[in-house]
Amino acid sequence: MEPVVLLPLEGLPLVRPGDDLVALLGEALARIGGPRPGDILVVAQKIVSKAEGRFVRLADVVPSPQAVELAQLTGKDPRLVEVILWDTAEVLRARPGLIIVEHRLGFVCANAGVDRSNVAPEGEEVVLRLPADPDASARRLREGLAQRFGVDLGVVIADSHGRAHRKGVIGVAIGVSGLPALEDWRGRRDLFGYTLQHTEVALGDLLASAATLLLGQAAEGVPAVLIRGVPFTPREGSARELIRERIHDLFR
Amino acid sequence: MEPVVLLPLEGLPLVRPGDDLVALLGEALARIGGPRPGDILVVAQKIVSKAEGRFVRLADVVPSPQAVELAQLTGKDPRLVEVILWDTAEVLRARPGLIIVEHRLGFVCANAGVDRSNVAPEGEEVVLRLPADPDASARRLREGLAQRFGVDLGVVIADSHGRAHRKGVIGVAIGVSGLPALEDWRGRRDLFGYTLQHTEVALGDLLASAATLLLGQAAEGVPAVLIRGVPFTPREGSARELIRERIHDLFR
Repeated sequence: MEPVVLLPLEGLPLVRPGDDLVALLGEALARIGGPRPGDILVVAQKIVSKAEGRFVRLADVVPSPQAVELAQLTGKDPRLVEVILWDTAEVLRARPGLIIVEHRLGFVCANAGVDRSNVAPEGEEVVLRLPADPDASARRLREGLAQRFGVDLGVVIADSHGRAHRKGVIGVAIGVSGLPALEDWRGRRDLFGYTLQHTEVALGDLLASAATLLLGQAAEGVPAVLIRGVPFTPREGSARELIRERIHDLFR
Repeated sequence: MEPVVLLPLEGLPLVRPGDDLVALLGEALARIGGPRPGDILVVAQKIVSKAEGRFVRLADVVPSPQAVELAQLTGKDPRLVEVILWDTAEVLRARPGLIIVEHRLGFVCANAGVDRSNVAPEGEEVVLRLPADPDASARRLREGLAQRFGVDLGVVIADSHGRAHRKGVIGVAIGVSGLPALEDWRGRRDLFGYTLQHTEVALGDLLASAATLLLGQAAEGVPAVLIRGVPFTPREGSARELIRERIHDLFR
């Protein structure tokens, strides 16, 4: 069995709205010899959001009464809360310093993924929303890179999320193209030849977490990681596969 | 920045109660050139439990009234439920087919980690409990391997858990020695030179999830993965760092 290798993509410039991520990532991939068939590119959500211009200037935001109320409860800036509510399907928990929501994209996360850190030079009050359709963002990257290199690879757009019951953020897949986000291992055999009864593996999240070992090195600015050596059956895929339906979620 | 490499440890025999895991893992490590300083060994919980003889024959188990009641509610074998309750601090959710508990070790998981799959030849009704003290198991492995190779490495004992809100299992650290399970990135600087305000990263879980990309290949039977190239500050560490205190867990 071959090792799995996580190759950091370095040397990307700071990404700005309108930048061509296929070109920027393509150059970084070319510097490490280009992708091979079966490689998976994990891209930090932040550079996708930036390239797609998902910035919001807080000075331009007028908070709704609901945002003002939630801001009072949580101690957050009402304009920030307003932006959070734009991307919120349902507020699940709110406490001082904390807003946990079901995002419009379906997953549960803090602040609807709206980020104040690492988005603009000091002094400007700017926040960054998640990509509008991260699966589509992943698909565009995959198609563009397939065209450039003549190689089909998988693409995962990764964010770091907290979670219920456990401390610390881990990597999660919010956009997927070219691989199963959720992989069904039912039918595989275990060491004794038994057939496994029920094992669905969150492949997208495993890949996002593996890449976060490098993505997270904020000071060094690694915005993407190429993962080589993970076997998977290519298909279009979607990060929505990873969302537990409300009715089956015992911890809502 | 160097790549991160995940090296599968192959060729281990089926592990039996009383086996010397330091010797078995040491031989597998020697076959790939031995560990280097800063390497992290991720070991599947299952082989640790087996070596520690954590098997229970269901024929020997007398279910308590509470186990009988919970078995009726969930449709599970009352003897299996009894073993689950041995390792349970609190039953959090019970539905047909499903028991989610706070384990005596502190984390939230299904069936208190008691496993029916992949533990014994067909016909025998045997289940496998988690190691009694996975941090101590990790420490013993680390000390034994340090003695054999003269190299200090980190050890993570990994299990695969489902989670609230999202589908599919991921890797989690249930035992840690020689590295921070939870790594505090506060004070690191982002791309603009800002200081990050609050980012605690679940390093133990990221490593467990990365290894699960290989561990999970059940048919090939990879029970351990050596991870090379992840920078960390060595310290004793404990998987308990990853447990969110009950009072701060908004999804209990």
